[in-house]
Order: sequence, then C-alpha cells, then structure tokens
Amino acid sequence: MSKKQKTFKPKARTPRGFGDRLGSEITDERDMLLRISKIYESYGFDPLETSAFEYTDALGKFLPDVDRPNQGVFSLTDDDEQWMSLRYDLTAPLARFVAQNYDALPKPFRRYAFGPVWRNEKPGPGRFRQFTQCDADSIGAPAPHADVECCMMLSEAIVAAGVSKDNFQIRINDRNVLSGLLESIGIEEGGDQTQKLGVLRAMDKLDRLGVNGVTQLLGEGRKDESGAYTEGAKLSDSQIGRVMNFMAASADTNGQTCDQLSNLIGSSPSGEKGVSALSEMARQLTALGMSDSHIKIDLSVVRGLEYYTGPVFEAEILSDLKDAKGRPVQIGSVASGGRYDDLIKRFKGIEVPAVGISVGVSRLLTVLSLLSQSQNQAHGPVVILALDPERMQDYHAMARELRDHNIRAEVYLGGSGMRAQMKYADKRAAPLTIIQGGDELEKGEVTLKDLILGAKLSKEIEDNTEWREGQPAQFSVPRAQLVASVKEVLARH
Amino acid sequence: MSKKQKTFKPKARTPRGFGDRLGSEITDERDMLLRISKIYESYGFDPLETSAFEYTDALGKFLPDVDRPNQGVFSLTDDDEQWMSLRYDLTAPLARFVAQNYDALPKPFRRYAFGPVWRNEKPGPGRFRQFTQCDADSIGAPAPHADVECCMMLSEAIVAAGVSKDNFQIRINDRNVLSGLLESIGIEEGGDQTQKLGVLRAMDKLDRLGVNGVTQLLGEGRKDESGAYTEGAKLSDSQIGRVMNFMAASADTNGQTCDQLSNLIGSSPSGEKGVSALSEMARQLTALGMSDSHIKIDLSVVRGLEYYTGPVFEAEILSDLKDAKGRPVQIGSVASGGRYDDLIKRFKGIEVPAVGISVGVSRLLTVLSLLSQSQNQAHGPVVILALDPERMQDYHAMARELRDHNIRAEVYLGGSGMRAQMKYADKRAAPLTIIQGGDELEKGEVTLKDLILGAKLSKEIEDNTEWREGQPAQFSVPRAQLVASVKEVLARH
Repeated sequence: MSKKQKTFKPKARTPRGFGDRLGSEITDERDMLLRISKIYESYGFDPLETSAFEYTDALGKFLPDVDRPNQGVFSLTDDDEQWMSLRYDLTAPLARFVAQNYDALPKPFRRYAFGPVWRNEKPGPGRFRQFTQCDADSIGAPAPHADVECCMMLSEAIVAAGVSKDNFQIRINDRNVLSGLLESIGIEEGGDQTQKLGVLRAMDKLDRLGVNGVTQLLGEGRKDESGAYTEGAKLSDSQIGRVMNFMAASADTNGQTCDQLSNLIGSSPSGEKGVSALSEMARQLTALGMSDSHIKIDLSVVRGLEYYTGPVFEAEILSDLKDAKGRPVQIGSVASGGRYDDLIKRFKGIEVPAVGISVGVSRLLTVLSLLSQSQNQAHGPVVILALDPERMQDYHAMARELRDHNIRAEVYLGGSGMRAQMKYADKRAAPLTIIQGGDELEKGEVTLKDLILGAKLSKEIEDNTEWREGQPAQFSVPRAQLVASVKEVLARH
Repeated sequence: MSKKQKTFKPKARTPRGFGDRLGSEITDERDMLLRISKIYESYGFDPLETSAFEYTDALGKFLPDVDRPNQGVFSLTDDDEQWMSLRYDLTAPLARFVAQNYDALPKPFRRYAFGPVWRNEKPGPGRFRQFTQCDADSIGAPAPHADVECCMMLSEAIVAAGVSKDNFQIRINDRNVLSGLLESIGIEEGGDQTQKLGVLRAMDKLDRLGVNGVTQLLGEGRKDESGAYTEGAKLSDSQIGRVMNFMAASADTNGQTCDQLSNLIGSSPSGEKGVSALSEMARQLTALGMSDSHIKIDLSVVRGLEYYTGPVFEAEILSDLKDAKGRPVQIGSVASGGRYDDLIKRFKGIEVPAVGISVGVSRLLTVLSLLSQSQNQAHGPVVILALDPERMQDYHAMARELRDHNIRAEVYLGGSGMRAQMKYADKRAAPLTIIQGGDELEKGEVTLKDLILGAKLSKEIEDNTEWREGQPAQFSVPRAQLVASVKEVLARH
C-alpha cells in the first residue's frame, strides 16, 4: 500500500454554473410543483416525462430567446456517432413526443411536465446552466379556446403556488398584432430581421426606459448612464410616432384596447387576425368571470417572436417586492406562454395547433419568499443525545416513539462527547434535545432542553434585560411523558 | 418562403436506451418517492440536490459493479476544456459535496436524495441509460450504529412504499467477513484480483445455481445448459470445501451464524473484525425489536466489494411474484446499501466513515404492481362535450364547478363534432361525459353518460346475457344537480 505519494487528489468543486441545494430550498420547490401539478391535473392534463437526452436533430434549436448571446445546448456523440443533446426546455421534447406518437394520442392532447433543463450558456451570478421548468401544453386545440384555458389555469396555478390573485396580473398580446404593427410601418415579414428585432427589443424596454428611452432606441440610438451606446432601429420619425401610438393604445379595458388597435393596425392582414384573436379571447375571459385588470391586453408584451405564432402571455407580480433590508427587488415575469402552431410541423409536415404555459420556478419561489418575508427558520429534527454507547437501543426507542407521533427525531450517532453533541444539535437547528444520562435513568426520567428558548434567554441575560420566569429552558419529566412534553415544547415556538 | 423543398424533416424518436413515461407511471413513482422521503425525513435526514454534471475527475469511477461490461459515463468538455460527466449514481456527488463543504456541515451529516442518474451502457430490453435512484446516507458516523439505523430505516421505507413487512427480508453481510474467508483460504488482500472476483461471483450465484453449480465455478469451471463454458476460480478441493462450509454457516438465528463464523474465519484479522461488526449489529437490531427473520445475516450476500468497506445489505422480496398471466417473475434485490469509508478519502486524504442505502425505484414499483395485481385502470377526467362553440363559457363553468369539488374535469377543445368528441372521451378513459345541447339547455338540464357502465352494458348485450335494470348509463338531471349527479356516477365505480 505505498500508493500514497502518487495518489491523485481531485479538488471537490461543482462545475461552473451548476450548484447544490439543500433542505427547504428543495422541499419548498417540491411543494410548489405539487400544488401547481394538482391544478394542471384538475384541468385534465396528464404528466409526461421525457428523458434528459434527445437526438440533436430532433431537438432542433428553438430557444425562445434566439437573440441571447452564448445560446447553446450541451451535446455529445453516442457510440454510434449520432449526436445527442440535453434538452434546453420541455417544449421541444414534447413536440418530438407528439410527432412520434401522433396517431395513438387523444387529440387534443394535454400534458404537463416539470423537471430540469440545461443551457450551455455563460454562467453568472444567479444564472445557472441547469434549472427547473414547469409547463402545461394543449396540442391539437385551435385558438382561442385553449389559449383562454391556459390563461385561466395559469392564474389558478399561481394562486395555488401562494400568490394572492390581486398580487399579480396576466398580460396578453398576440404575435400577429406585432406583425401587423411592423407591416403597417413598412417592415414586412421575412424582411430585415435586424431592424425588426431592434424595434421589438426597444418596445420590450418601455417599463424600464420610459417613452424617451424607447423613442431613442427606435431612432438613431441611445447612450445610457454608464456611457454605453446602443445602436437604434433607425426608424423614421413618422414610423416612431406610429410605434409609440401603438404602445399607448393599451387602455384600461381590453375592449377599448381592441377598438384602438383596430384603428391603428386593423388594415394589415396580420393585424386584423391578431386583433380578432385578442378580442375573442377578451370576450371569453370576461364571460368566464376574469376581470380586465387581472388578465389584461398589454401591447408592450413581446416575448420570443420567432417561436410563437399567435397569442402570447406573461404573468407579472404587481406589488413592490422588497428584500429583508427593505431594498426594492426587480423580478421579471414569473410565468409565460403562448401559441406555437409551427413546432410540430418540423416533424409532421402539417401544422398542428399548440399552446402552452411555463412557470418560472425559481423566480416564483423568490417572489414567495419575498412576499412572506418569513424570519421563521425551519426547525431541524429533535436530537436525542447518545451519552452511553451501551444504551443506543434506549435512544432509538425514544426516537421511534417521537416519529410515531409525526415528530422528526434522530439519535446522535457521531461518537463524540456531550459538548460536541450539543454543538451538533445547534448546527442541525434542533428545536430541542433529549438527554438521559445515568442520573435520569435512575430516576426514570428524561431531560428536555429547549434550544430556542435557551438561545432567547441567554440573549436576554447578555442584553441585561428582565429575566423571564415561568418557562424553563431545561427540565426533567418522567420517561413516560416524553412525547407529551416534547409536543409542549414544540408548541411554544 | 420557398424553403419547402430543402426543409430538413427530422425523424421523431427517442435516443437508444432512453424512454418516455406518461400518466400513472410517473405519479406512482412520485407518490412512492414522497412516501419514502417522509420516512427519511422522520429520521432527521435532509434532502440534498446536486446538479446532473460533475467534473469528471471529481466524479471518479466508483460504479459499484466494476466488473460489468460496457460500464461508462456520459462525458463532454466544457468551453474551458474541462471534462464534465453526468452523474452515474447519487453517492459520488455526495462525496464531492461533503468534501467541498466539510467544515460547515454538522457531523454526522445525514442526507437523502432522489433523481435521475445516467449510465453510458449498452441499452437492452428493460435496461435504460437513465433511471431513478433514491438514496439516504450518513456521513461521519462510525459503525455499527449508523448501519443499524440504515437497516431499520430501509425496512420502514419499504413498508411505506407499500410492501408488508412479512413480504420482504433485509439480508446483511460484511465485507470484512468475506475478506476473512479469502484470507483464511490463502487469497490475500491486494493479491490476484481475478481469482478473488471469481470466488465472489461464484458465491453470489448460490441462489441460482445451487451447491453443485457453485462448486464447479469455484473449481475448474462450469458448462451451462446452453453449452456455454464459464472458467472457474481454480480453487483446490480443500479451499472449495472451506468456501462451501462458510456459505452453509448461514443459520436460522443471527447469533448462531456469528458463532459458526467465529470458528470458521475468526482467526484471520479481517474475519475477526467482520464477525464482531455483524455480531454487534445483530445484537442492536434484536434490542430494537427487529426479528432475525426480517433482518438476517446471509453469507451469500456479496455486492460490490471494491466499493464497500464494512457491512453490506440488500432487501429481497419473499413472496413468489407472478405476472397477470400467472407466470413467475424474477426480481433481484429491491434495495441495497453498505458502508464505504474510503470514498471521501479521495478528496480529503483522511478516512470519513460513511454508510448508505439505495432503493431500486423501478424494481420496487414493478414489485408493487405485481403484488397488487390491480386491474383497476386509473380513470381519466370527466369530459364536458363542447357542442356549441358560442357557449364555451357555459361548459367552462361546469368544469369549474366540478373542479371546485375536487373532480378532474375538462372541456373538449378540439373543434370536431359529437362523434369525435365521444371517441376522445373514450381515449381519455373518461368515467363519464356531460352533454348540454340545445334541448337540454331549453329544459335547464344536463345529460350524463356513464361510459364505464355503458361499456359493460354493451358487452352484456353482445354476450346476450341478462339485461340489467336500474342504473341507466345515460340520463338527464337539472343543471343545478350537476355536481351531485356526477359524484353519484363516480361512486358507482
């Protein structure tokens, strides 16, 4: 065994852009996904799970944000030299699945899915190369009924996740309305893509830059506070005027917005199609009891234009979010979706109508934690100290009793002494420890140590504030009262 | 848009060895994993989630079955030329995580994890290259306390999954006992690996080949029924005798087994260590109320010897499993585990005690479906026909009412006629459909069509058996009684 010197010792680290998650980070997400799934299931959507890999040619490159830098997928070749890629979303595998099983599937086919997706992008702070998506899609259902259902269901899913209905808004637009605008100012479908994307990207920034900033970006260009210059879309003044009029057409009621849109872009074929789709969606949503303020036509909603073919939607949080220190937090949309009638055509050659929604899982979780601002750290398990290695079975029996009453409990198994065991209990965020040494055993008792109260009391002593009587942080009870007493301590907090 | 002719049309197919799963296949697994997780959590284990990728050097190659052909991992290079691999199990990432966060973690550190793992192996029937694992591990706890806890917890987890306690057995052995046997017959640690593996592989086949087959495999070799010849381990007759005596030492009680083991291999240092670990485990398990027949020392349990360093365990189903046609089904162990004190040493240079269990998720699901032999197909949602496109909101309102009473319901959104809608409901396995055409609307009624009873009745007519009176398959009720009547129909089945 003289291998010591040449043994390679790897460095323990996660690959760039990949992370580990522990404890409530995982269970909070899991709980949220289950609540959302329950809504999807109640609407008749069934779960579908595809594997991480797809053949690269079948997966295609339909990333919604085609203009994002460093876009990409993780790919490798299989033994037989075929290229495989990790899925970058849940929609492309769905398109492959539907095309593969088209004849056997009920049509419309409704499915939901959640799971990890991978993007081979440059990692950054808060920007991971693996993240969770949660989607629901209707395949084979034409507009606008399935689109309306998606909006309703999305609203319900976000409520189920824990955001109250008056705290968010679903904003809808239509890809054809945007095409109609472009047509009406002389930018045709299939024409100059750079200018087209420039216009849409400028519109997308109305929230952030206001009317002046967007006007500059539609024209020659804009220098921001840092001095960085962004080239503009080079529209003429009259074109800019029409775009700004279009954006200003978002009115208080969806009906008014549609009326104004008809006047502005109704004369272009795409525009007419888009306005009529939005009108019909608005009419149905009203009939279903959805208020115009909850699901609102918003003409600045752009989303991935290359991907969607009809209505598009996104969900925005309305309340001002603040972190624990009271500083404002900017969160983008927590969910989005839209109609993509072309995606399955790649395989089938025929157009298959499709519409879906996708919840931004990590963003929604961030919102939930900011909204609750809960300082309540989740407790760890009750820790039973193991003071006498000969009496492990007694400690295990205590743990068993507690578990039988739905109390998380563990026996310390590390083999260190009393002090280390108490430190361990602190690190585990244990609400209390249970001690039974020789003295307690003789008297038929156990000692309970309330760690939360204990921490409070020592702080009060430190702070020199009034000493509270009544609830002692440490006390002994007869062994038979273990469960009842643990419950009492847990009920304190 | 004259791209038509040159458009590439990919074939929709899953990569070799990867599959899709739909509906109850997913929800059954999800439910089982949640039930098992709840047990792990009750023991104080916290969830940990690592990403799919690890750096290849950090991951290492610690596949338990090192002697399996085509073993391998999926690997690729990152932008910065570093090799990354998809995890092949959940233990190697755990070792990396612990090494990376060693000082900050409570010790012992208990975690559970479930999720997909990937093996770059030759796919075959029922052999996938992506599958789910569900693990729990204690890091930093020396034997045998944590090993005992793992066995107890594994027993509880399998019960929680749905197998009754008398229907399975946990079999334990110890790596040192096996080393002791090898030492006692003159095969030393670090000696001839081929012979050593040959002996262990032969022992592993006692169940299948019986005493004669194993004796041949320990000696010169064995020709099976197909005529294929397997080279033997070339032991001498006296060595073979000692191995066979060793295997026969598995007695009815764990105490007897340990006594016999002491005589057989207690004189070798490894053997003594192993016997003493097994004895102490057996003693503690008895003290904790576990019967010797439920957790039993079984000297033919081998498992991956390169990987484990102390106790090893596996869970076996006891009842004869049969498929729906009554044919016997062979399932291997549904869970396994053991102590692996060396795995974190790679990173840290110091030995860190570790023990864990891993549930064979798909095997256990197979066992559960074979045990229940349930012919009950899960129902789909209630389907509300959409006969009049102008009245979608009425249909949606019905769906809403049903969902508010926890009944899965969907409106048909496909745009086809009555006949296609009924076919759709059949394909969805809908228990019933709801119809409100013009006539019903005028009378303020809805028609319910019980598809399960309807199918039964048409079969009875076909079979020319007695016509059942009483429950009609189709009937109308006042609109206000929709929910109550749907509940009645659902209660029939």
